[in-house]
Amino acid sequence: MASTVEGGDTALLPEFPRGPLDAYRARASFSWKELALFTEGEGMLRFKKTIFSALENDPLFARSPGADLSLEKYRELNFLRCKRIFEYDFLSVEDMFKSPLKVFGSAVYSSGSERHLTYIQKIFRMEIFGCFALTELSHGSNTKAIRTTAHYDPATEEFIIHSPDFEAAKFWVGNMGKTATHAVVFAKLCVPGDQCHGLHPFIVQIRDPKTLLPMPGVMVGDIGKKLGQNGLDNGFAMFHKVRVPRQSLLNRMGDVTPEGTYVSPFKDVRQRFGASLGSLSSGRVSIVSLAILNLKLAVAIALRFSATRRQFGPTEEEEIPVLEYPMQQWRLLPYLAAVYALDHFSKSLFLDLVELQRGLASGDRSARQAELGREIHALASASKPLASWTTQQGIQECREACGGHGYLAMNRLGVLRDDNDPNCTYEGDNNILLQQTSNYLLGLLAHQVHDGACFRSPLKSVDFLDAYPGILDQKFEVSSVADCLDSAVALAAYKWLVCYLLRETYQKLNQEKRSGSSDFEARNKCQVSHGRPLALAFVELTVVQRFHEHVHQPSVPPSLRAVLGRLSALYALWSLSRHAALLYRGGYFSGEQAGEVLESAVLALCSQLKDDAVALVDVIAPPDFVLDSPIGRADGELYKNLWGAVLQESKVLERASWWPEFSVNKPVIGSLKSKL
Amino acid sequence: MASTVEGGDTALLPEFPRGPLDAYRARASFSWKELALFTEGEGMLRFKKTIFSALENDPLFARSPGADLSLEKYRELNFLRCKRIFEYDFLSVEDMFKSPLKVFGSAVYSSGSERHLTYIQKIFRMEIFGCFALTELSHGSNTKAIRTTAHYDPATEEFIIHSPDFEAAKFWVGNMGKTATHAVVFAKLCVPGDQCHGLHPFIVQIRDPKTLLPMPGVMVGDIGKKLGQNGLDNGFAMFHKVRVPRQSLLNRMGDVTPEGTYVSPFKDVRQRFGASLGSLSSGRVSIVSLAILNLKLAVAIALRFSATRRQFGPTEEEEIPVLEYPMQQWRLLPYLAAVYALDHFSKSLFLDLVELQRGLASGDRSARQAELGREIHALASASKPLASWTTQQGIQECREACGGHGYLAMNRLGVLRDDNDPNCTYEGDNNILLQQTSNYLLGLLAHQVHDGACFRSPLKSVDFLDAYPGILDQKFEVSSVADCLDSAVALAAYKWLVCYLLRETYQKLNQEKRSGSSDFEARNKCQVSHGRPLALAFVELTVVQRFHEHVHQPSVPPSLRAVLGRLSALYALWSLSRHAALLYRGGYFSGEQAGEVLESAVLALCSQLKDDAVALVDVIAPPDFVLDSPIGRADGELYKNLWGAVLQESKVLERASWWPEFSVNKPVIGSLKSKL
Repeated sequence: MASTVEGGDTALLPEFPRGPLDAYRARASFSWKELALFTEGEGMLRFKKTIFSALENDPLFARSPGADLSLEKYRELNFLRCKRIFEYDFLSVEDMFKSPLKVFGSAVYSSGSERHLTYIQKIFRMEIFGCFALTELSHGSNTKAIRTTAHYDPATEEFIIHSPDFEAAKFWVGNMGKTATHAVVFAKLCVPGDQCHGLHPFIVQIRDPKTLLPMPGVMVGDIGKKLGQNGLDNGFAMFHKVRVPRQSLLNRMGDVTPEGTYVSPFKDVRQRFGASLGSLSSGRVSIVSLAILNLKLAVAIALRFSATRRQFGPTEEEEIPVLEYPMQQWRLLPYLAAVYALDHFSKSLFLDLVELQRGLASGDRSARQAELGREIHALASASKPLASWTTQQGIQECREACGGHGYLAMNRLGVLRDDNDPNCTYEGDNNILLQQTSNYLLGLLAHQVHDGACFRSPLKSVDFLDAYPGILDQKFEVSSVADCLDSAVALAAYKWLVCYLLRETYQKLNQEKRSGSSDFEARNKCQVSHGRPLALAFVELTVVQRFHEHVHQPSVPPSLRAVLGRLSALYALWSLSRHAALLYRGGYFSGEQAGEVLESAVLALCSQLKDDAVALVDVIAPPDFVLDSPIGRADGELYKNLWGAVLQESKVLERASWWPEFSVNKPVIGSLKSKL
Repeated sequence: MASTVEGGDTALLPEFPRGPLDAYRARASFSWKELALFTEGEGMLRFKKTIFSALENDPLFARSPGADLSLEKYRELNFLRCKRIFEYDFLSVEDMFKSPLKVFGSAVYSSGSERHLTYIQKIFRMEIFGCFALTELSHGSNTKAIRTTAHYDPATEEFIIHSPDFEAAKFWVGNMGKTATHAVVFAKLCVPGDQCHGLHPFIVQIRDPKTLLPMPGVMVGDIGKKLGQNGLDNGFAMFHKVRVPRQSLLNRMGDVTPEGTYVSPFKDVRQRFGASLGSLSSGRVSIVSLAILNLKLAVAIALRFSATRRQFGPTEEEEIPVLEYPMQQWRLLPYLAAVYALDHFSKSLFLDLVELQRGLASGDRSARQAELGREIHALASASKPLASWTTQQGIQECREACGGHGYLAMNRLGVLRDDNDPNCTYEGDNNILLQQTSNYLLGLLAHQVHDGACFRSPLKSVDFLDAYPGILDQKFEVSSVADCLDSAVALAAYKWLVCYLLRETYQKLNQEKRSGSSDFEARNKCQVSHGRPLALAFVELTVVQRFHEHVHQPSVPPSLRAVLGRLSALYALWSLSRHAALLYRGGYFSGEQAGEVLESAVLALCSQLKDDAVALVDVIAPPDFVLDSPIGRADGELYKNLWGAVLQESKVLERASWWPEFSVNKPVIGSLKSKL
């Protein structure tokens, strides 16, 4: 094939160095360059290349294997790197609007108004450094119970920000530990007469930008080392009657007049809350992409390792790559497929979010806009758990699949796992978020039951539910593995599963209420066995559906259809197989064959994909400099790279500084010695 | 109840400080002291107390919250602590033999003979420091492919230890990085005429004990930072024709005469290999106990946190402990039950191992002794994966169940997870080890099919298989949740499951072979879907069986029977529920009710145990000094302890040392700035 067909100029997608991975690369069923172009597009490939090259050529971003930096040094480096990235100014404002995918994750939600523009200018000039102070020592998920107060004093036209006690100290705030000069502090807004209007955001200066010393009345500090993400200084703050001007209130959701009257563009608290769903969703959608990025790197490392690590074989003389073992394929290839499926989903959900935010920005108050907000909220609230957990489990599997070498810090699987871990927690604990999604679906069903409403949503993710009585009559009718190797099989099963779980959850909830449970109790009792699997099955279905449609669209180059179809089928069937007990229980599956066919199909797809695995990794893996894992380098020289990296570490061959202690003051072991 | 009945003197089991955990402690259905005495015995409680008190009063073991030690400083501290523990000499040799449980994990396998006694004396005097050098850079699991050589030279009566290239460098060897002076090096023993006799262990001096400098011909160094266990210096070594005396061969399994003739007490290599199974088992059995210890600590932290952390509630005013939510119970209580069940199993398997080792020491070469070795090998090879994975997943769940605070390093869930992680890998990768167990069971079935042999094993773990055709006809016949709340229900189901999987695996293996697969291929093709679940189900059954018998024995105090029965039932049914799809597939389950009953029984047991959870934790948790987690302290003062620990950290309120960089050299943002 001509290089233009394959993937444009080789400067953009250079050839990989020859080496032990050649054999797998030669066996791939498709051109990795063609898939890279199809998946990313030339513009994005160019954009990434610009960034990666700039960083690779900048000594500030040099990798130092085995560097044992103190927390303080690591944070200093991180601060300087952030600053430098600002200076590089990779993305212009015009670019942001033209190609929203490029700012994925950097969207800054502004809850203020024009009077706060000066802050934004200072932020961009790095004259001030902000942080977002919502959670407190004793409250996270239940934000309504946040206890910091902001009392308005009309005499001076100021708010008085106050922490009633240490349990109400702001806690876990990113950048607050050492760096931030200003905080967006969420506090209960109270106007004279003790009228309180719930949580509102206030800009509060916490440190002097010249000296980084705390402002009067502010006790601010660092919460200490975390399991990961230690480049970030999470902090705490207690406010002792700190006065800030009236204009410090970020007043998009509500404002206070100079005289002390509360005014809001929203009629009630509920509506105000609804309007803020969009900003909650954007955080969660960003986390989906962060999680998938972590999984991408881990899978790339583990699969290149597996294609070059040889252990055992058909004879004592011949050892084969561990990727040839069905066990290793089954452990890793579903996560490779998950990367492709979830990455596509994450991008598509981000574009939906952009649509939502454009509507918000243009003041769209249509019913469709509100429905879109609710649908995206439901999808984001379940896809964040799905992506963060899939990544958590996937990285763990990758770590174990690389054996001892996966446990060596320089190979980077540990840091990926540690950095991914908070994705399961922040912006809402995964299990709590899933309630948002199951509640959304239950609300739609109640609306249908009581009002005869149709299941319709702007993104059509719930439209299939209209046919739910018919879907519930369906059965699994695939009897051969060959007929099962398609994501359409999983799609049909997932639709049945969501209908089944929705009906069961609805019935169980009503039954609990009829037997005297309060709404609170009833929901709690139904969540483990019903609401949770419902929310997960629904979002898995949506991911499977979107990827299925993506890989079956006419614009897919013919040479990529087979491999993409297999990825889609593998992710779908593997995910589905975790619900096999429910499929049997509800009667969609019956007999021994159904379960066997599903299991065999997953293994067959793994086997079909194993020769494509290295090329599929080549598409998603960043350059070696970014991947930064000796066992995962593109040249596949596993042992040379690992050995070289070990020998480059500081003090590798040196004695420990404490060597003299080894030989002095030998203890005399009492009873053991006397008995030998 | 009198204090003597409840748990002897209060000095041994002191009361807990009053505080927020009182409410749960008061609601417990049993006396935690009585259970502690029943579970551990007074002697063990005293022994632990002696050790814990000694360490708590020794400044060398002081906890320093938030200490940011360099790798080198951390290792120095660790070295000094090891030395001090030697000096304490907690356990006499007599005690070791009288009460083998006390040396759990410290058993040192000796593969040498009397001529090596002098080394052991020096080890106990800490004049030399040893390490165990088996794995190489390119070989771990496949030990037969180890490439280091030991050629015997009769002219000088020496062995020449040699690494052919860097891929054959010894790698991952614990203590080798900085500390060890001597290594037990596994190398291929070759006598003149190039006759090679497989791997043998040699004692090789690698460093000078006075200077800790490497010996001539030895290149030895540190492999670098790991994900955890960084107190230990794992290292590498390459040997360049290093000559060691003939007596350096640890000659229990084979020896070389001064003239160069190889002699062995074993007739063939296979028999020699069989004799070494015992030593492999002892490593694995130790890992089971290490893993469970990690899970014990994690569960203690997460449950005390859950009993004191309040979030949301039935009304906006009232918040309830998160332990009251069925979701939190379901996430954590099965792991609490797992601690009890697996801890009992681990101790009982260790006692079986002691029996095996006594037989080896006394020269028992009976068929029973050989069978015992095989049975323990099969149990150890599957219980190490079960325990390490259960702990891995359990700690992760505990981390997430503690929300953000679980992600703070000082609360210790991260270090427990990181330290547990290699348990999944060393002494045999979990997935590879499971093959040993499935092969053992398949071998027994083949013996029965071909020779009509009965299923009989010294520990009786396979005896039930004799009735396997009858068992396979059984069905699940429990129709109410109330009837399901017993581990006997799970036991019956597990027996069916093991029989089903054994038959299916055997048939699938034979079918693969008939269709032309080699033995190697056939086993690889059957492992994922058959061999792996078979091995896991078998060991789960054994764990459930032993704990079921333990809690139903007549010596259990009546007041403890209910809670122990619930723990046994919860662990059993929860473990079983992960196999629900197989139970349906094979026809043991049918209809919607079976799966529902199982799921509801797990939730019902969680609910029954939640008021006992804190007291159950009080039994297994070590003193606060050892547990070392602000959110898990026995007084339950969650926020006071956490806040106090954060404020004790060094530099908590200080500016970062790099603060001047914050305000100098402000970058000028090009396009962004110009557009604002």
